[in-house]
Amino acid sequence: VTPEEFRIAGHVLIDWIADHRQRVPQLPVASQVKPGEVAAGLTPSAPERPEQFAAVLADVERIVVPGITQTQSPNFFGWFPSNASLASVLGDLASSGIGALGITWASAPALTEVEEVVTEWLRELTGLPAGWRGAIHDTASSACLVAMLAARERASGYSQNRAGLQGEPAPLTVYTSPQAHSSVQKAVLLAGFGADNLRHVAVDPVTYAMRPQALADAMAADVAAGRRPAAVVVAVGTTGTTAIDPLAEIAPIAARHGAWLHVDAAMAGSALLLPERRWMIDGIAGADSLAWNPHKWLGTILDCALLYVRDAGELVAVMSTNPSYLRSAADGQVTQYKDWGIPLGRRFRALKLWFHLRLDGVEAIRARLRRDLANAGWLGEQVAAEPGWRLVAPVSLQTVCVRHEPAELVRPGGEIAGGEIADGEIADGEALDRHTLAWVAAVNDSGRAFVTPSMLDGRWMVRISIGAEATERHHVAALWELLKAEAAAAAW
Amino acid sequence: VTPEEFRIAGHVLIDWIADHRQRVPQLPVASQVKPGEVAAGLTPSAPERPEQFAAVLADVERIVVPGITQTQSPNFFGWFPSNASLASVLGDLASSGIGALGITWASAPALTEVEEVVTEWLRELTGLPAGWRGAIHDTASSACLVAMLAARERASGYSQNRAGLQGEPAPLTVYTSPQAHSSVQKAVLLAGFGADNLRHVAVDPVTYAMRPQALADAMAADVAAGRRPAAVVVAVGTTGTTAIDPLAEIAPIAARHGAWLHVDAAMAGSALLLPERRWMIDGIAGADSLAWNPHKWLGTILDCALLYVRDAGELVAVMSTNPSYLRSAADGQVTQYKDWGIPLGRRFRALKLWFHLRLDGVEAIRARLRRDLANAGWLGEQVAAEPGWRLVAPVSLQTVCVRHEPAELVRPGGEIAGGEIADGEIADGEALDRHTLAWVAAVNDSGRAFVTPSMLDGRWMVRISIGAEATERHHVAALWELLKAEAAAAAW
Repeated sequence: VTPEEFRIAGHVLIDWIADHRQRVPQLPVASQVKPGEVAAGLTPSAPERPEQFAAVLADVERIVVPGITQTQSPNFFGWFPSNASLASVLGDLASSGIGALGITWASAPALTEVEEVVTEWLRELTGLPAGWRGAIHDTASSACLVAMLAARERASGYSQNRAGLQGEPAPLTVYTSPQAHSSVQKAVLLAGFGADNLRHVAVDPVTYAMRPQALADAMAADVAAGRRPAAVVVAVGTTGTTAIDPLAEIAPIAARHGAWLHVDAAMAGSALLLPERRWMIDGIAGADSLAWNPHKWLGTILDCALLYVRDAGELVAVMSTNPSYLRSAADGQVTQYKDWGIPLGRRFRALKLWFHLRLDGVEAIRARLRRDLANAGWLGEQVAAEPGWRLVAPVSLQTVCVRHEPAELVRPGGEIAGGEIADGEIADGEALDRHTLAWVAAVNDSGRAFVTPSMLDGRWMVRISIGAEATERHHVAALWELLKAEAAAAAW
Repeated sequence: VTPEEFRIAGHVLIDWIADHRQRVPQLPVASQVKPGEVAAGLTPSAPERPEQFAAVLADVERIVVPGITQTQSPNFFGWFPSNASLASVLGDLASSGIGALGITWASAPALTEVEEVVTEWLRELTGLPAGWRGAIHDTASSACLVAMLAARERASGYSQNRAGLQGEPAPLTVYTSPQAHSSVQKAVLLAGFGADNLRHVAVDPVTYAMRPQALADAMAADVAAGRRPAAVVVAVGTTGTTAIDPLAEIAPIAARHGAWLHVDAAMAGSALLLPERRWMIDGIAGADSLAWNPHKWLGTILDCALLYVRDAGELVAVMSTNPSYLRSAADGQVTQYKDWGIPLGRRFRALKLWFHLRLDGVEAIRARLRRDLANAGWLGEQVAAEPGWRLVAPVSLQTVCVRHEPAELVRPGGEIAGGEIADGEIADGEALDRHTLAWVAAVNDSGRAFVTPSMLDGRWMVRISIGAEATERHHVAALWELLKAEAAAAAW
């Protein structure tokens, strides 16, 4: 494809994208394709001769689009928001068009320095301490692995330069909440700590936030048994219910043992742009690292996860390589992001953040985040006030966790000592699970909205995660009517 | 940015990219900016109010473009080719426009299934064994780490589910070439094996390829000492000189010890599209994994690295997570790429490969690769025939490794027994290094071409890596004249 051919095809594709985004609200939210259906539509071998752009785009329209769950739909309430703002799409296109290679500062000085500046913009916007520095990774999963590797090496006196973890005399241990994202456990296992050395610290039964005393007890018990606490992973906004672990109380406990303190704020980090939500990271000065994903609620298109660290030198000590073919005269005066993470080669991902913040402006982004928090609060009130429905966790961010509990399956609660109202007691949990999964399937199969079932305390509930860029109050209100209708219609 | 605003800005940006790609040959190849110069041009804080697209694009033109080393230039001969074909840029734009979220099959069935189909296309095109399966990762660095983690777990009987690597009785060892890419050592260290357990196996002094007997000896010695060989990393195309380790001889040695055999073909993998180059992976059926980067020579824009494995189940056994909120009715019938690597969330990167292969066609890609191999052969002949110049390694792919050796610094070689010609002996290595670095700096500072200095056997040499999409014979010929002129002009 020559530049002139690109020009012609590019204009067609831009129009296609603009048109596509406008029709997304009308598309089924959950993809309705069956396993293997997309693959069956593709040719089994690559073409020897060039195909026409129109033929490829027709296949996108015919095969690809129906095979996508429309996370950009205003009726998408699944998992967490995954906004692909068009401002950031423009930045991503600029990045691709330039075609830069990020391996060292010298290979693309602008790639490094725009990333330094834009991560500093976001450090300031989110209230992270001065001096903390950020880099763009693909996901919070990778960022957590990087933090766990840095923790492992610091705790072991940089054992990787000797016999590695296998030469260590006493086991290193890691602590997190059972409500933490699955990627935390994965990172701990991949870093080689072993499942036996991962502690799932007890959480509060109402808020689902980590109990600091339980953490202190677990760490003390391990030390008494000759083990060495290496890391604590705190969730600011858990995946299931967006519970917020109390960082300010946890930080001194981690510090007492010299453990690396990593904050996983993958979802909630966007809310730190709101000054009134900064309390979520009270105590951050005592942490070592924090990860959050602009590619979620903020809306800078995938993949864009930020890892901030108090001392980047602790990453460089673990991740640095310096082969002769990557040296340049600028070494020592510049940031080498290759030494801050796992991959050597990097895309120019800072452009999409830079375009996004500049073209949309921070004020409008803040207004959107506040809109979503208000919508979640409103929905939470509707659910709490509706007979037969229950909020199964506090609405601490923009995700509302609910269950429809028909009277036949739940013994009524009522007033207890002190004027509190007790929840009803589940009479038949298996039937309740069947009911929950039945009505959520009906909602998702309808194509009219998409929500995510998830387990809490061993029972299924439904997460309604508000925050697609296009979602307004009337979409949330329509969802609530749909949920009530499908729950009423579903058997158990 | 609304769809209609995106439409207007998008058309402007498409035209800018088409124009930019056309002027790239006239731009300085190496960025001429000084450390901090790009950052100094940017505002210190994010804007509260939206900016005009024209203002952002003007900054790209004024600040970003001069801060890029132009890897898309026909005069780029540095590191390895990093082609960003415009066909793949269109695919990447389609991906961004759609804005899909790849976390499970259900989140975007097409994202998974197009990736399955297109990696199968490339498996067939590169002659990998039937049944091997591929996935897209960001880089060969990450792919190598995934392979090392899979190797570690297989060798330790899946110790991550117990006490981790720290519970292992006898050390696990890994073997690679001292010429392997820096990311191999990094992966071994990050996986926790420890530097003491990484063996750099001796290479042949002429070809720089791993000596199978030296590998066999090293593995046997470790076993005799009670250590356990876990992995062998073979380089098919080393970074320094594109040496090709003899896989067919190495595979049975690795198999004897049950070690995971990973093939790093990051650069050379593209050449496997040429049937006449398939000999490079003779013996592949005895390997466990192979990684190569379409984002290098092939030209599918960053980031696009492929990791193929003989048995994907061995990745899933190490990488799998299954939290309640990611389950769906399709589980068990579909591929879950989240369980094949480190990150959970993935972009729809298969689209750029799919667009690239379809819009350019395989025939044209093969012709370009053969053109580059012929150009490298031609340049190698010129260098070998030119008095005062030396090919320091065989031209085994598209990279030519040279040194200008002025008579004052090198005692003449000459005919020795058997009619062979001995290389000259270096009389003053320090002065020769100063000379090499001086003339390569002059070439790169000129902006007319870009090559990479690298060390071999303790001395600097210069790598000329041919393969930018736009590089024709006349560009290589012009480079050769430039090298001779700058070397003649440089002091020592």
